[in-house]
Amino acid sequence: MTDPASTPAAVIIGAGDATGGAIARAFAAEGLIACVNRRERHADALEALAQSIRDRGHGARAFPGDARSEETMTGLFDRVEAEVGPVEVAVFNIGANVNFPIGETTVRVYSKVWEMACLAGFLMGREAAKRMTPRRRGTIIFTGATASLRGGSGFAAFSGAKAALRMLAQSMARELGPQGIHVAHVVIDGAIDTEFIRDRHPDFDNARARDLILSPDAIAAQYVALHKQPRSAWTHELDLRPWGEKW
Amino acid sequence: MTDPASTPAAVIIGAGDATGGAIARAFAAEGLIACVNRRERHADALEALAQSIRDRGHGARAFPGDARSEETMTGLFDRVEAEVGPVEVAVFNIGANVNFPIGETTVRVYSKVWEMACLAGFLMGREAAKRMTPRRRGTIIFTGATASLRGGSGFAAFSGAKAALRMLAQSMARELGPQGIHVAHVVIDGAIDTEFIRDRHPDFDNARARDLILSPDAIAAQYVALHKQPRSAWTHELDLRPWGEKW
Amino acid sequence: MTDPASTPAAVIIGAGDATGGAIARAFAAEGLIACVNRRERHADALEALAQSIRDRGHGARAFPGDARSEETMTGLFDRVEAEVGPVEVAVFNIGANVNFPIGETTVRVYSKVWEMACLAGFLMGREAAKRMTPRRRGTIIFTGATASLRGGSGFAAFSGAKAALRMLAQSMARELGPQGIHVAHVVIDGAIDTEFIRDRHPDFDNARARDLILSPDAIAAQYVALHKQPRSAWTHELDLRPWGEKW
Amino acid sequence: MTDPASTPAAVIIGAGDATGGAIARAFAAEGLIACVNRRERHADALEALAQSIRDRGHGARAFPGDARSEETMTGLFDRVEAEVGPVEVAVFNIGANVNFPIGETTVRVYSKVWEMACLAGFLMGREAAKRMTPRRRGTIIFTGATASLRGGSGFAAFSGAKAALRMLAQSMARELGPQGIHVAHVVIDGAIDTEFIRDRHPDFDNARARDLILSPDAIAAQYVALHKQPRSAWTHELDLRPWGEKW
Repeated sequence: MTDPASTPAAVIIGAGDATGGAIARAFAAEGLIACVNRRERHADALEALAQSIRDRGHGARAFPGDARSEETMTGLFDRVEAEVGPVEVAVFNIGANVNFPIGETTVRVYSKVWEMACLAGFLMGREAAKRMTPRRRGTIIFTGATASLRGGSGFAAFSGAKAALRMLAQSMARELGPQGIHVAHVVIDGAIDTEFIRDRHPDFDNARARDLILSPDAIAAQYVALHKQPRSAWTHELDLRPWGEKW
Repeated sequence: MTDPASTPAAVIIGAGDATGGAIARAFAAEGLIACVNRRERHADALEALAQSIRDRGHGARAFPGDARSEETMTGLFDRVEAEVGPVEVAVFNIGANVNFPIGETTVRVYSKVWEMACLAGFLMGREAAKRMTPRRRGTIIFTGATASLRGGSGFAAFSGAKAALRMLAQSMARELGPQGIHVAHVVIDGAIDTEFIRDRHPDFDNARARDLILSPDAIAAQYVALHKQPRSAWTHELDLRPWGEKW
Repeated sequence: MTDPASTPAAVIIGAGDATGGAIARAFAAEGLIACVNRRERHADALEALAQSIRDRGHGARAFPGDARSEETMTGLFDRVEAEVGPVEVAVFNIGANVNFPIGETTVRVYSKVWEMACLAGFLMGREAAKRMTPRRRGTIIFTGATASLRGGSGFAAFSGAKAALRMLAQSMARELGPQGIHVAHVVIDGAIDTEFIRDRHPDFDNARARDLILSPDAIAAQYVALHKQPRSAWTHELDLRPWGEKW
Repeated sequence: MTDPASTPAAVIIGAGDATGGAIARAFAAEGLIACVNRRERHADALEALAQSIRDRGHGARAFPGDARSEETMTGLFDRVEAEVGPVEVAVFNIGANVNFPIGETTVRVYSKVWEMACLAGFLMGREAAKRMTPRRRGTIIFTGATASLRGGSGFAAFSGAKAALRMLAQSMARELGPQGIHVAHVVIDGAIDTEFIRDRHPDFDNARARDLILSPDAIAAQYVALHKQPRSAWTHELDLRPWGEKW
């Protein structure tokens, strides 16, 4: 039997939507233990995700908790390293897409979006880096969006948080690449096949049938591919969009 | 005598360094009342700046207070509009340049840099926009840096905050331009003639004599020029650097 | 009387449209001799432009010729320096906006657009630089467009040429800035008040009356302002668009 | 036996260096017939490359010729479709990295670099697109460089050509994506394991042993991976650099 504390772990922060779940499944299928996180109040759904991965014969553990809390995040990484194994992959996948005219953007909204989409990413990135750098190996991936690159009308909060997350990824890549840590940022452009989109898209079934909706599994496959790149040719940033997307 | 409550005001948030002071002087020289802000603990220096402008026969008022506080900022704009006149110009000039390896970046540092260099900018931008949009006129300028565009090693906190501020500026420009509000972002690249730089630059006097140091007055002149652009040809973003700067 | 061979000259390549003409007038109003260029076949219109500037009491000379020809361009700069005075300003303002599906883009179109919008700019930039660097002074400005930054559908030829021109400007700025030459690139985004636009815009008069059309004079004023920036604070790139433009 | 005119072909323009060769081998290993091109004067080496691929039991054909010639390129695509099979993949891999001060950049150099690194790419892209769009399938990949994004001192010619090539790729992606054609641009940043680099790198063997040199096979694997992406999640642009590269 495998010693649990020596099986490489893939930490997925923001495993609450279809994408996070698919990423967890994909890394678990590669033999890593998927250590999935989302908020306490969704602990049951999180455990169900972990169970569904275990049901396939792969490894998974649920670590519910607020990713914006330093204590929670350091605790999570400590527990994973103690109970599961070395963190080999860390993926940050929390979004917080909102749109408000600037005059109607409250401090609460502006700050919460930053805390969720950026500060939590900083905490994950830093805690992962601390544990990976002594071993000189590991992959850290941040999920970005078109808003990471462009501040559209009404998107001051969201694009601000996403651009800050992108700068975190870039800054970490420049510092940690030469220490053997692969830091990547994936710009996702287009509707993803999630419940949220299903409920809102005017013609979802037809669009999905025509591959016009981003498949979470395809996204997840790309994250795994980033992790598997040889270190002589690492990608820091790439975009992903359906073939028919206007951009 | 001019009715004080009807003279256009230029609010300068972050009037604590040479640049903020020069911007205040430049707008005051254009006939606006420079309403300068920096923290309470520097209230004496702030008042001295305002007095020095008044000594030249121009208008200035000191409004000390913490720009990260919503209450302080809404109060500041309310007081300026009541006691001085309509805010015609608002300039955000708070920096927070720090460099730490990612593993040594504390949550406190990461958050404080964002609060100072970004959240305070959001508060200023929003409060200025609220007052300018009904009048369909006004100029809002944010001070950026090379880090606004690029996440260098060790600059996760600073470049994150600056990139988020840039997205705020871009998002506001796209929303408010068609409402008659000019929103601009100035990327400053190079050492500015400040006490901080004087103390650290290896060959300051020679470099300044050769114009290799950014002059605060030259920066300020550019901010005034942005304000005076006709609305048929507005600039949203420009860079400023000394002629000899490597980039 | 001024010695003609010692009055600073402003060379404007592409003085065939409203913008080039306005730029010529603006530099002439600053006391430089506007040396304007467009193709031979428009020599009469070019001379009329020069005459209209002289009629205002300013200096102007017409130098018709094909800007894509190395011989023509070196000859032009030689003549200006011999007959007028040192080239202090050089502005490249030739556009070539076309849109074709990729499959219908001929080699002829693809090459001609590059020759007009890029190769001619290289010739001007190089010839200006050769003459300015020994004097360690001068300003070189290239007119860009949104297509300089983004390759839209159907714009392979135009955006390719404009992006190459932008790289020329950036490369020259990095090399020549430390030699005292100010190289700038202006991204113009929006319809300009030209005959071409007047004939095509669905609601031109109303749009112009509302300042929704870029004014050539406003553009020209910005070019002059770039030339007059003190060397401690040079701008390499800025954008210009009407207040109501979507971007 | 397979009907030769129905086996999918991968056209590789610029199969003269280690990268082009590796890309040819990689697509051949996927079952496509690698149709490799470089100049006539290297026809023997090109044939040797094709033979080496056939020796492994894969398919390859040599099509020597000048990629800057429209006739050559249309002829090449015609022959591939007639003699081999439908072009399913087209890769443009011609570089032309030169560095000259602007004053020493001849028209010949400036034009040749553009013809090799950009015009030839346009010809390949257009001819591939013409044949792929009626079938609504195919992958077109352009090799980029850091200079595609940034005009360094002395790189006016090279960065101009590479930026124009990038705009070609972007323009084609926006037009052809919705027609089912995947157009991608790969920004390669760092020394590649080629003879050129081996001769010039101060510490090549050690650097390669430490994976600090880009492996052509790793690059090629990425190109194949781009081709195999499901159309619900296509990447348009990604970068590739060795882990220790400064950027």
